[in-house]
Amino acid sequence: MSMTRRLFELCGTDPARIFSPYCWRIRMALAHKGLEFEAMPWRFTDKQALAFAGHDKVPVLQDGDRAVGDSWEIAKYLDAAYPDAPALLRGNPDPYVFINAWTDTVLHAGLARLIVSDIPPLLDEADRVYFVQSREARFGKTLAEVTAGREERLPAFRASLLPLRHALRGRDFLGGAAPDYADFIVFGGFMWARVVSALDLLEPEDAVHAWRQRMLGLFGGMAGATPAMTA
Amino acid sequence: MSMTRRLFELCGTDPARIFSPYCWRIRMALAHKGLEFEAMPWRFTDKQALAFAGHDKVPVLQDGDRAVGDSWEIAKYLDAAYPDAPALLRGNPDPYVFINAWTDTVLHAGLARLIVSDIPPLLDEADRVYFVQSREARFGKTLAEVTAGREERLPAFRASLLPLRHALRGRDFLGGAAPDYADFIVFGGFMWARVVSALDLLEPEDAVHAWRQRMLGLFGGMAGATPAMTA
Repeated sequence: MSMTRRLFELCGTDPARIFSPYCWRIRMALAHKGLEFEAMPWRFTDKQALAFAGHDKVPVLQDGDRAVGDSWEIAKYLDAAYPDAPALLRGNPDPYVFINAWTDTVLHAGLARLIVSDIPPLLDEADRVYFVQSREARFGKTLAEVTAGREERLPAFRASLLPLRHALRGRDFLGGAAPDYADFIVFGGFMWARVVSALDLLEPEDAVHAWRQRMLGLFGGMAGATPAMTA
Repeated sequence: MSMTRRLFELCGTDPARIFSPYCWRIRMALAHKGLEFEAMPWRFTDKQALAFAGHDKVPVLQDGDRAVGDSWEIAKYLDAAYPDAPALLRGNPDPYVFINAWTDTVLHAGLARLIVSDIPPLLDEADRVYFVQSREARFGKTLAEVTAGREERLPAFRASLLPLRHALRGRDFLGGAAPDYADFIVFGGFMWARVVSALDLLEPEDAVHAWRQRMLGLFGGMAGATPAMTA
């Protein structure tokens, strides 16, 4: 069996423009564990490329003869397969489930209503058609309508981050003194926004802003060096 | 030194009507660890009773010659002092900080706007004066104004529980198959509401309702047997 490690990640026309928040969780997780990987740029309509793994969404991690889909399953797999590398779900995965749930239902939902209309211009034509049709069906309106008036809605979005702000009081990371998978879960949402949208989500004096800067600098500035729409 | 274990807990005129959400976290935590304790009913204006501990708020745990205040500090103390009893913060306390932050900033804030006006009738006169004055100052309006129209605001409150609902998908407890401190953190808020208010917060078909029922039944039905305003 080959010992190749490959991460299939959602991107736009530019293969460096990785924007799925779930893919970012795993990209950061692999760096945290010190595991090299080959980036496999993937687009929404390229279902066939994942058929080997029995999945139709990314992230998919191919690790030698194993293929694992779903970011949460991949995180658990990495801790089980590489117990000597720094843990992602330290001690016990259960309390991280709530952080996952908040991120999926509050942070991502709030971000989508601010940035979803910025995504289509970054996509190949086939992906653009798929994305616009599926998202307009989900929202029941055009993507321009979804994000209309977004500048006026920024204060409400920022207020929705209050639990995050409180959880960072007196700590550099959600993981405490050092980042762990809690940080990667939440940071994925901010990378999604950063790669696709020029909208300034955070005020510079916000503790969440300072935390995001620390996250951008991790692993030699890996996330910060990714092509983005915001500085 | 005496080896007495005492928990100072906020109550109303009726000493059995324990209603502070932070005290409920520790009441459940002590039961989880199988630690007996003497309940010390405490009222807002009885600052002198806590002077021995150097605190002016409850919960305060007196454990032999130790006195510990602040629910989070007490939870960490209990795990450190009783490592052979079931853990509260299993494996690693850090991810529980976010659950704490969400509960304090979203759940408690939402509950206060629904139930705070139900509290004064349950209090002694001195406590009632203190409570009404301090809370009206905090909200900048009368407590009746704070909770006005609450029935119409219940759908928005229930929507704010979406992260909790998601985190319970496929699991009986936030701790997974068995409860842990994550459950006690969140449940404290629901006990606060249950003890002081007749308002029906949850719809019977809500997964959060089913979880609350499981919590009420723990430890021989300890929480469920506490005098409450709702069935």
